[in-house]
Amino acid sequence: MLDWIDDINWTDLLLQVGNIAIRVIAIVILYFIVKSIGTRAIRKVFNRKQDEMNLGRAKTLESITQNIFTYFLLFIFAGFIFSIFQFDITTLLAGAGIVGLAIGFGAQGLVSDVVTGFFILLEQQIDVGDYVTVAGKDGVVEEVGLRTTKLRGMDGTLHFVPNREITNVSNHSRGNMRALVDIGISYDDDIDKATQILQQVCERIAVEDENIVEGPDVIGVQAFGASEVVLRVIAKTKNGEQWAVERNLRKAMKEAFDQNGIEIPFPHQVHINKNA
Amino acid sequence: MLDWIDDINWTDLLLQVGNIAIRVIAIVILYFIVKSIGTRAIRKVFNRKQDEMNLGRAKTLESITQNIFTYFLLFIFAGFIFSIFQFDITTLLAGAGIVGLAIGFGAQGLVSDVVTGFFILLEQQIDVGDYVTVAGKDGVVEEVGLRTTKLRGMDGTLHFVPNREITNVSNHSRGNMRALVDIGISYDDDIDKATQILQQVCERIAVEDENIVEGPDVIGVQAFGASEVVLRVIAKTKNGEQWAVERNLRKAMKEAFDQNGIEIPFPHQVHINKNA
Amino acid sequence: MLDWIDDINWTDLLLQVGNIAIRVIAIVILYFIVKSIGTRAIRKVFNRKQDEMNLGRAKTLESITQNIFTYFLLFIFAGFIFSIFQFDITTLLAGAGIVGLAIGFGAQGLVSDVVTGFFILLEQQIDVGDYVTVAGKDGVVEEVGLRTTKLRGMDGTLHFVPNREITNVSNHSRGNMRALVDIGISYDDDIDKATQILQQVCERIAVEDENIVEGPDVIGVQAFGASEVVLRVIAKTKNGEQWAVERNLRKAMKEAFDQNGIEIPFPHQVHINKNA
Amino acid sequence: MLDWIDDINWTDLLLQVGNIAIRVIAIVILYFIVKSIGTRAIRKVFNRKQDEMNLGRAKTLESITQNIFTYFLLFIFAGFIFSIFQFDITTLLAGAGIVGLAIGFGAQGLVSDVVTGFFILLEQQIDVGDYVTVAGKDGVVEEVGLRTTKLRGMDGTLHFVPNREITNVSNHSRGNMRALVDIGISYDDDIDKATQILQQVCERIAVEDENIVEGPDVIGVQAFGASEVVLRVIAKTKNGEQWAVERNLRKAMKEAFDQNGIEIPFPHQVHINKNA
Amino acid sequence: MLDWIDDINWTDLLLQVGNIAIRVIAIVILYFIVKSIGTRAIRKVFNRKQDEMNLGRAKTLESITQNIFTYFLLFIFAGFIFSIFQFDITTLLAGAGIVGLAIGFGAQGLVSDVVTGFFILLEQQIDVGDYVTVAGKDGVVEEVGLRTTKLRGMDGTLHFVPNREITNVSNHSRGNMRALVDIGISYDDDIDKATQILQQVCERIAVEDENIVEGPDVIGVQAFGASEVVLRVIAKTKNGEQWAVERNLRKAMKEAFDQNGIEIPFPHQVHINKNA
Amino acid sequence: MLDWIDDINWTDLLLQVGNIAIRVIAIVILYFIVKSIGTRAIRKVFNRKQDEMNLGRAKTLESITQNIFTYFLLFIFAGFIFSIFQFDITTLLAGAGIVGLAIGFGAQGLVSDVVTGFFILLEQQIDVGDYVTVAGKDGVVEEVGLRTTKLRGMDGTLHFVPNREITNVSNHSRGNMRALVDIGISYDDDIDKATQILQQVCERIAVEDENIVEGPDVIGVQAFGASEVVLRVIAKTKNGEQWAVERNLRKAMKEAFDQNGIEIPFPHQVHINKNA
Amino acid sequence: MLDWIDDINWTDLLLQVGNIAIRVIAIVILYFIVKSIGTRAIRKVFNRKQDEMNLGRAKTLESITQNIFTYFLLFIFAGFIFSIFQFDITTLLAGAGIVGLAIGFGAQGLVSDVVTGFFILLEQQIDVGDYVTVAGKDGVVEEVGLRTTKLRGMDGTLHFVPNREITNVSNHSRGNMRALVDIGISYDDDIDKATQILQQVCERIAVEDENIVEGPDVIGVQAFGASEVVLRVIAKTKNGEQWAVERNLRKAMKEAFDQNGIEIPFPHQVHINKNA
Repeated sequence: MLDWIDDINWTDLLLQVGNIAIRVIAIVILYFIVKSIGTRAIRKVFNRKQDEMNLGRAKTLESITQNIFTYFLLFIFAGFIFSIFQFDITTLLAGAGIVGLAIGFGAQGLVSDVVTGFFILLEQQIDVGDYVTVAGKDGVVEEVGLRTTKLRGMDGTLHFVPNREITNVSNHSRGNMRALVDIGISYDDDIDKATQILQQVCERIAVEDENIVEGPDVIGVQAFGASEVVLRVIAKTKNGEQWAVERNLRKAMKEAFDQNGIEIPFPHQVHINKNA
Repeated sequence: MLDWIDDINWTDLLLQVGNIAIRVIAIVILYFIVKSIGTRAIRKVFNRKQDEMNLGRAKTLESITQNIFTYFLLFIFAGFIFSIFQFDITTLLAGAGIVGLAIGFGAQGLVSDVVTGFFILLEQQIDVGDYVTVAGKDGVVEEVGLRTTKLRGMDGTLHFVPNREITNVSNHSRGNMRALVDIGISYDDDIDKATQILQQVCERIAVEDENIVEGPDVIGVQAFGASEVVLRVIAKTKNGEQWAVERNLRKAMKEAFDQNGIEIPFPHQVHINKNA
Repeated sequence: MLDWIDDINWTDLLLQVGNIAIRVIAIVILYFIVKSIGTRAIRKVFNRKQDEMNLGRAKTLESITQNIFTYFLLFIFAGFIFSIFQFDITTLLAGAGIVGLAIGFGAQGLVSDVVTGFFILLEQQIDVGDYVTVAGKDGVVEEVGLRTTKLRGMDGTLHFVPNREITNVSNHSRGNMRALVDIGISYDDDIDKATQILQQVCERIAVEDENIVEGPDVIGVQAFGASEVVLRVIAKTKNGEQWAVERNLRKAMKEAFDQNGIEIPFPHQVHINKNA
Repeated sequence: MLDWIDDINWTDLLLQVGNIAIRVIAIVILYFIVKSIGTRAIRKVFNRKQDEMNLGRAKTLESITQNIFTYFLLFIFAGFIFSIFQFDITTLLAGAGIVGLAIGFGAQGLVSDVVTGFFILLEQQIDVGDYVTVAGKDGVVEEVGLRTTKLRGMDGTLHFVPNREITNVSNHSRGNMRALVDIGISYDDDIDKATQILQQVCERIAVEDENIVEGPDVIGVQAFGASEVVLRVIAKTKNGEQWAVERNLRKAMKEAFDQNGIEIPFPHQVHINKNA
Repeated sequence: MLDWIDDINWTDLLLQVGNIAIRVIAIVILYFIVKSIGTRAIRKVFNRKQDEMNLGRAKTLESITQNIFTYFLLFIFAGFIFSIFQFDITTLLAGAGIVGLAIGFGAQGLVSDVVTGFFILLEQQIDVGDYVTVAGKDGVVEEVGLRTTKLRGMDGTLHFVPNREITNVSNHSRGNMRALVDIGISYDDDIDKATQILQQVCERIAVEDENIVEGPDVIGVQAFGASEVVLRVIAKTKNGEQWAVERNLRKAMKEAFDQNGIEIPFPHQVHINKNA
Repeated sequence: MLDWIDDINWTDLLLQVGNIAIRVIAIVILYFIVKSIGTRAIRKVFNRKQDEMNLGRAKTLESITQNIFTYFLLFIFAGFIFSIFQFDITTLLAGAGIVGLAIGFGAQGLVSDVVTGFFILLEQQIDVGDYVTVAGKDGVVEEVGLRTTKLRGMDGTLHFVPNREITNVSNHSRGNMRALVDIGISYDDDIDKATQILQQVCERIAVEDENIVEGPDVIGVQAFGASEVVLRVIAKTKNGEQWAVERNLRKAMKEAFDQNGIEIPFPHQVHINKNA
Repeated sequence: MLDWIDDINWTDLLLQVGNIAIRVIAIVILYFIVKSIGTRAIRKVFNRKQDEMNLGRAKTLESITQNIFTYFLLFIFAGFIFSIFQFDITTLLAGAGIVGLAIGFGAQGLVSDVVTGFFILLEQQIDVGDYVTVAGKDGVVEEVGLRTTKLRGMDGTLHFVPNREITNVSNHSRGNMRALVDIGISYDDDIDKATQILQQVCERIAVEDENIVEGPDVIGVQAFGASEVVLRVIAKTKNGEQWAVERNLRKAMKEAFDQNGIEIPFPHQVHINKNA
């Protein structure tokens, strides 16, 4: 009943398995040697050119070149490895179609990554060093690749985002940004007087803070809050300086209100007393 | 055991790889030369015509022409590159079907982008300079393309939205907009008197503010709030001026209430005191 | 090594490209001429008939006819253009299958739009001028098309909704609407007395306001609120007049309560005082 | 260079187009005539039988018959129209496969609608006049069709729900419903006494209100609220009368508590006073 | 030009259509007769056996048998009807493939329903009369079918849930349930004393209430609330009695606290008074 | 016209149907006999071995063996049943392809279940008796199967989770757990003193409670609350004992604070009084 | 009628089934022997090398090697098992295609896992011991595998995350992290003075706490709170020490404010008293 085991030519099988293993190992070693040489060569080339170009763009170009080199290599060596297996294991296994199916499905995700990555690079949506929001994560771009984009989050976390996950790219490092401060005044205070004080602060800050490109200006009564009338101030600032400008504006506006006796009101409530 | 390495004709292989590399590089260089020439030519043509046409429409048309030119070029050169690889690498790799599959999947996303982009342009849903909301992002359109639409967000962020992500287009720059202000009065105040004061403010503003197209009018008691009776005022304004009109209305209404002794009430609460 | 460039017959290629370009341009021009003539003819026909028919329906029919005409034309001319490319570029490019695949995917979305649009029109779910909610947007229908439906939002925004995005259609312009007002009375007030006062207001309004079709009626104690007993009044009104009726009812009910000394209570809270 | 235009037999083409147009128009007219006759015939038949049957079921059956008749007709005439186009346009256009693909995709959604609709009708999940919740919309069924179900929302809106959107059907018009009233008493009040008073109210209402099928009964202490002990009363009522019963119960319970000096407590808060 | 109409053999066509109609009607009538006979026979058989078996299981088995019978019948008669159409309409319509496609898509949903339904029945996840939560709806099972499961919601609504919508089944009628009551005591009260009082209540209830299987027990300090220390009591009860047990426990615990002078505290707040 | 009925060989048909029915019934009976015998045999074997092995692992292995046996059986008998139908009904029905399609779709879900289940078992992600969270449900595992996993929820509910719904498995019964208690102190209290008192409590509990593996320790000021400074205490406990340890810690910390006069503060609010 | 049973060669069938069973068991036993030997060999090799390499990297490499070995083995043995079934059962069952389909679907998920896992390892996104957030779970990596990644959650739970569920990887163990503390001061306090005190604390902590890499610094007025002006302090810390640094900063800042009489304000409210 167990004579089916004899049907398999064990010597032949072991030879084949061993043969494959040696070839695979040889190719893997070769892969790492070639990759290491190529990677260093590319880095050297770009290190020389760094002086002539913009730093962020140089890094992006280097990262792309490295990526294309790596995937080209991976593709070629994958070809070698498949060519080895194709003549050995597939004769062993009847279900060769399953392997093909599996590779097809695997390739699908990878192709999605590469195609998206290709257009991100082609349309220069992202440069290394940009502050961006992609796939619900925001951070500073550390590396743009054909398959993965690496972001350094504000809290220090390193996010690896596969390019297929990137749909909308929101790039916060392209052109001037807007600073916006809302400040509340009491319903009893005079809107005109408060606006005038704020506008004076705005004009002083506009001179003092060289990160401001346009404004700041008081644009008017933004809302009727529950306990305060909300005034809005906006300015256009240099890229990346919007938060600093907002903080400056907040401090200056608070101090101007203090000096002019205008109150930033606490929540109010009218109490009607009854006795139980 | 390692004689399988001899099966590969190394000289031939290297020649082939080198050959391919040179052709690809030649084509890529050619691509950038042709693209650069074409792009400038198109820009020149449209710069001349800018005087005769509406600016936003001229920019849109230029951006479309540039797009079609770029993708036409990309398509042709991709054809060249594929024709090179087809006769070389695919003979090297048995798994040519995988390449085809991969390109198919890659093309799918691209075609979705282009088809959607085509109809956005055909139906003139978006012009450069319009303020729109698409795919959850809102901003001013900087460029409409066949593959990607670029929006400049209110805070200065540049959004790259692939057209496939655009389903509904909400265009805020087509025709008059509505200004809407809700204001609360005390439950003790007379609704008729408050309405009359607000209506007078409305009529004055309607004359003063040339951005108002229709109204403003007090339309009545919108809601019974927890501590106030809410009155609603609406107006029709010129496009893009709705927020300025609302701010004007808020300031004028607050000042009119102050003059007439009508209170915008704080939250009220009835307290019933018990002793523990 | 670069002799592969000679393999391509450059003269022939350029002639072919030029030839295609001229034909495409000729067809595109022809398309716009025919479209313009057809569109005006259809408008003229419907302008004459507008007197005889209901305006909204006439506009809907015109918009449909225009749509069918446009897509019929587009279809025919697309046929011409494909027939041109089919005999030229596809011989140039080996990857003709990719083009077919791409068109198939592109067509899929378009067909979804047209099929959905066809049934929306066939079942008359939407007329021009109706106030509807589709795909999470609500507004007044400006145009119903085979591919796209245009809504004018309440705030003036123009929404372009591809028909494939439309699943449920909620049409707010078909038949009478309901006005609903909830009003709170104090836990100390007599429910019967308050109901009686409100019912009197309802009966007066029912006579005064010709937009009311049925009711209004006080239907009873809807809820025990934290600080008030909530009474509900509902009425059936003419289409589009529900909000005006609600505003009328709110004003009248508030005034009737004021006259009869029934309080709309503020939030209550029982305070138990302890000393620290 | 433009002699390719001569390749097309213009006379023949125009004749063909005209020919198709006439046939299509003839078929469309025929379609509307047959549909109109059939629709009236079906209505007549059902009007006669309305006396003998339950009204809601009769309307449902009529609506189904109308639907099947319409789609049968549409199917036949679509067959005629396709047979016309098949012998003409498809010879003109090489891309006949695209048409087939498109129809396939279009049919998919339609078939989903019809199959779902078929089972909704077969299993009698919905009758005309039922109050149901489907696909996140609730309302009274105005028409059940093979493709679309029409609901009249509570606020008067007419919802068109494609059957494919209907997964769960929640039918609120099948059998008795439950009325549920939660009422809070003070932590100081006696639970037994309050329960007894509420139970007396329940027994009185059970006799007075003929819409009540079972109960109402006080089932006990449902929760410890922040400021009150919550008692729950439930009853079984005739279909559609649950809200009226709840309103009756609320009024009666409030009045009984007033008579017996049991308080429905306001939110409580313990205040500990410190001085700054 | 209209002679194409002659191409169709009208007499033959009408005969065919009539012929099909008669056969379809005959088959439909036959279907209803056979179904009615079979349904009654199955009911009779199960009515006899009801005495010998558990009621819920008997109903489930009857409902399954009815289902299998119905779908078997439907399947056979569908076969007859398709065989009729296959030889007639499909010769009329060229697009037979569309019909096949449509049926395929339709079958997909149906098969999903039946396969899921089959495993629900095989693994006895649901019996008639069980209180379950499936597909976001909870209620008592009225009928388990191969295609649809009917639930009677707590408020009386009848939910029709297609089996494909059922992923997780949460069956609340299998084995003992847990009763859980959280009760707050003041930060000033002694935790040990309160625990002791509650434990005495628990022990008394454990004896009195025969629906309790295990416990109840005070398990300790569950949380530090804003104004109270939360103690938790849990018990194991007979199936379906958990809510009644919880209500009993709440009442008893409240009364025990009243007798022992332990306060269930209201929200506390410390007030620090400043003068403006 | 009705002579088509004669075309069907009724006697033959009935014989066939009867024949099939008998075979199906015979196979079903055989299935239940074999299943019952096999199930008991497996249980017996595992009952004997239970003494030698860990109980949870023994139950898991038994449940897997039962599962594999059941599905193996089901597979074989399904083969018999299909072989019967294949030679009979499919000759009756032309649409055999539909059956194949249907089975394919049905198999898809089943295969997803089995493959996921296989890896859950292979990687020992779940044992019977583990407390896990899968597919949004948490509970104690009652049975792990190839198709379905049964969880007993904390409230007693029995969840049937198809394995395909299981993506992440969160197993709460593998290794030590963490106990975490946050406690607030007044802004007026000394952080060092409070930390010292808590640390003393921690050290005492660490000795007393043998379920604690590491800690507990006060790790510092976790947050500035609105009215309190939040201190955090964490400990490592034996598996399943984390809640008991947290309750112990809470009680002990509260009592230590009481003894040392450190207040767990109520919400604070500063009141500024104005007169209307 | 039952003679169809004779058609099956029972003896032959049983022999076949037995034969298969024995082979399968033999292969399964062989699998476990080989796996056990291989696993131990790999562990031994890595244990020796642990001294020379970084611990986390060594563990990752070992875990990968184990994984590849296991799946390689599984693949080979699955080949044996399928080869057995292919020649036996498939001749028994007509529906061999179903098995193929099923395996294809099963393989799809597995391939997704392995491809994603491959790139996670290739790009070194995760090492054993890293603190990461993947697929909505966060924890310390216990094992990275080709199919599953195991995380130990903060509360002790062991999460098994299939690699296909991993899209974005957020690795919190790569480089320095940021500590961030927001602290509120009263609207009455001087911003400059408070900033100065905080900055002094920052400078002291910067010296004392060696886990701080950069800063901490007071960056300014982050927001106007309802009752406080919010100041923000940020620092760069060694990886994993950010929470400890934040706790240190909070304690030191609180104590510095206490010493300098700067208040961290409670929520404020302005009360306007009316009498009912």
